[in-house]
Amino acid sequence: MSSTSPGESRGREGAPFRVGLLGRGTVGGAFYDLLGERAEAIAAATGRRPEISGVLRRDEGDFDEILAGSDLIVEVMGGIDPTDDYVLRALEAGRHVVTANKQLLSQHGERLYAAAAAADVQLGFEAAVAGVVPAIRVIRESLAAAHIERVHGIVNGTTNFILTAMARTGAGYDEALAEAQRLGFAEADPTEDVTGKDAAAKMAILARLAFGAAVSLDDVPYEGIEHVTADDIAYARELGLSLKLIGSAERIDGGIAVRVYPAFLYGGHPLASVSGSFNAVTVESPAITEITLSGPGAGGSQTASAVLGDVVSAITPPAGQLPPAIDLPVVPDVASAFYLHVEVADQPGVLAQVAEILGLQGVSIKSVVQRGIGDDARLVMVMHPVLESRFRAAVDMIERLDYVRARPRAIHVIDEVFE
Amino acid sequence: MSSTSPGESRGREGAPFRVGLLGRGTVGGAFYDLLGERAEAIAAATGRRPEISGVLRRDEGDFDEILAGSDLIVEVMGGIDPTDDYVLRALEAGRHVVTANKQLLSQHGERLYAAAAAADVQLGFEAAVAGVVPAIRVIRESLAAAHIERVHGIVNGTTNFILTAMARTGAGYDEALAEAQRLGFAEADPTEDVTGKDAAAKMAILARLAFGAAVSLDDVPYEGIEHVTADDIAYARELGLSLKLIGSAERIDGGIAVRVYPAFLYGGHPLASVSGSFNAVTVESPAITEITLSGPGAGGSQTASAVLGDVVSAITPPAGQLPPAIDLPVVPDVASAFYLHVEVADQPGVLAQVAEILGLQGVSIKSVVQRGIGDDARLVMVMHPVLESRFRAAVDMIERLDYVRARPRAIHVIDEVFE
Repeated sequence: MSSTSPGESRGREGAPFRVGLLGRGTVGGAFYDLLGERAEAIAAATGRRPEISGVLRRDEGDFDEILAGSDLIVEVMGGIDPTDDYVLRALEAGRHVVTANKQLLSQHGERLYAAAAAADVQLGFEAAVAGVVPAIRVIRESLAAAHIERVHGIVNGTTNFILTAMARTGAGYDEALAEAQRLGFAEADPTEDVTGKDAAAKMAILARLAFGAAVSLDDVPYEGIEHVTADDIAYARELGLSLKLIGSAERIDGGIAVRVYPAFLYGGHPLASVSGSFNAVTVESPAITEITLSGPGAGGSQTASAVLGDVVSAITPPAGQLPPAIDLPVVPDVASAFYLHVEVADQPGVLAQVAEILGLQGVSIKSVVQRGIGDDARLVMVMHPVLESRFRAAVDMIERLDYVRARPRAIHVIDEVFE
Repeated sequence: MSSTSPGESRGREGAPFRVGLLGRGTVGGAFYDLLGERAEAIAAATGRRPEISGVLRRDEGDFDEILAGSDLIVEVMGGIDPTDDYVLRALEAGRHVVTANKQLLSQHGERLYAAAAAADVQLGFEAAVAGVVPAIRVIRESLAAAHIERVHGIVNGTTNFILTAMARTGAGYDEALAEAQRLGFAEADPTEDVTGKDAAAKMAILARLAFGAAVSLDDVPYEGIEHVTADDIAYARELGLSLKLIGSAERIDGGIAVRVYPAFLYGGHPLASVSGSFNAVTVESPAITEITLSGPGAGGSQTASAVLGDVVSAITPPAGQLPPAIDLPVVPDVASAFYLHVEVADQPGVLAQVAEILGLQGVSIKSVVQRGIGDDARLVMVMHPVLESRFRAAVDMIERLDYVRARPRAIHVIDEVFE
């Protein structure tokens, strides 16, 4: 680690570019090593050699001292408190900041974006969304001139790993989760990932960029994969579908809808072939049709690489700050196709009655598989697109039928051409 | 079209950003329209409203007048002469330039990059490679900090459309080409596309960016798809392979190899599922593993959108100029796996003799299909990776055997893990 000398010729061509590092866990350690490896090449390309000016660990280092001796702060310690305070103070002190902290940005982003703009410094967060996949940069820069209609993607590697394992081996959710934990693809406490909260935070950030509207985590309803069964996946395969945890942000009726939910995809969908811990993001705009970006979703060295890319951009700045947020209404009820799985007593007239209830709510059936198992039968149906509220109302009515054995399972279905 | 007033407050916040347009064919027309549609949104985001300050057509407009009244020149007229002169003069006059001209860049790029750096202006060329897929920006910016080992991709939409049609319908090359022409995916004279020259120019540009070495079209050996038969594709399918025209740029033995060739891909390869006129580029680096970018490869509005993205970047500049080229040797002979199709008289000992020749050259066989057709037989083999020169030498020897009926057909094979 080189010496820190506050006040040193900041911004001057040839002077070292001093990077203060907050946090030295998996990502922080990988970043520290990668910076060392790439420092010469970066100096050759940008005219300034990046160097670590100080490291703040839980029990070591002083934030104010590191701040004073740095041109840029890399925040990879995670959490909201005291991270929020550190990042805000760094921006207000005129330092560039690069962070991988999606929860921070999805909850306190507007204040941080405003602070970066006021101080005319870069706030980089490519590493906060979709690992090494450069979704942030592509939306901010390549598509700066495009009217984006929709962003959807697989933005959580843990859940995609689990769903891929379930589809491949026929394993149940618990078994696949245990395998993911054993291989390091899921944390000991996987709650944020499997409930969809992690993906929701990322979609809030992507929606802010794509549509310019302030979207916080609170605006993003999310549903996880904890209740997916091996059975659902087996039946779906018969219907030619594969299951993914989808994050979706789209313009609807003059507003926007940002959501996270498990969904079945038909084979031809560009996200259907994204497997294991990979992430992918598809951006749709009339002028460009669509762009899909995919790559490893997580991993220390991948995230460190995304952080370092933002550091390089701060040395030689790309496009300016994020413009102030505009107002767009958030649409609560959106049309979608659905898969419905109902366990019923195997007696005459059941299918007819279920179909009648669906019909009353305006839900139209696309395909059905019915199969008897002892005294029971299973109805597995795929519906045509319908407003989610209408479909949920129908499911509530079906659940109350006498011969329905358990709460019906409903999962979104995404058509080959995403709706 | 608004008035052109040379000398107008160039660079001043709030002043219109004046764009001179060279060429108004399919892309030029789409760009003209798109700029009009998006001008307000760009003004809101950047503080400057882009407007067309003049249009040069073959028989209309004066270049010097347009140059004097523009902050940026968009070149979408194509060709080398007089385009080369126009672009160079624009850069030397201190104007930003955005071009979609891959032949120009792959043949005279170094002079243009140097002129842009000397004048401290932007030279944007996202639209020159892979249509709307932001490969240039991702390599220049996101991966500025990465050591890129390999870039490979499908960078020509016409040939991918033809190969996809052949695989889907069993059609021969001529029939599939005719369909592509009828649907507007191939030009009346498809030579540049089907011979691989178009893809070679794009790979030269990508290699320049990825490795920093000066790579011109002359450094890129290319092979097209004109000699691919429906038969090859049918046999390959039996072996679980699909055929793509692959552009590849990689570091080998301290140098680089940049090539274009048709290749069979195993099903799990990330490029195997890219179909129709779509393009895709995969970038590999140890720290990031790999990123794949895909989207429509061509089309007026897609290319226009890529051009407009570069115009916006010139208004609010991203990372600096390309650094001067470094020297890296170009490696002529590279190891690859191959598919070999030999028509022979159906008599004993043929396979043994062919196998012996291959063995003498160090070529090892991975799988074989042999099938009799009347008095003839066909040997279809996939080889393990071997230096291309050794394999070609073996093929020459096999061709000279008495009972070989026609020139054997050899095609590259790319394994699930590329090589």
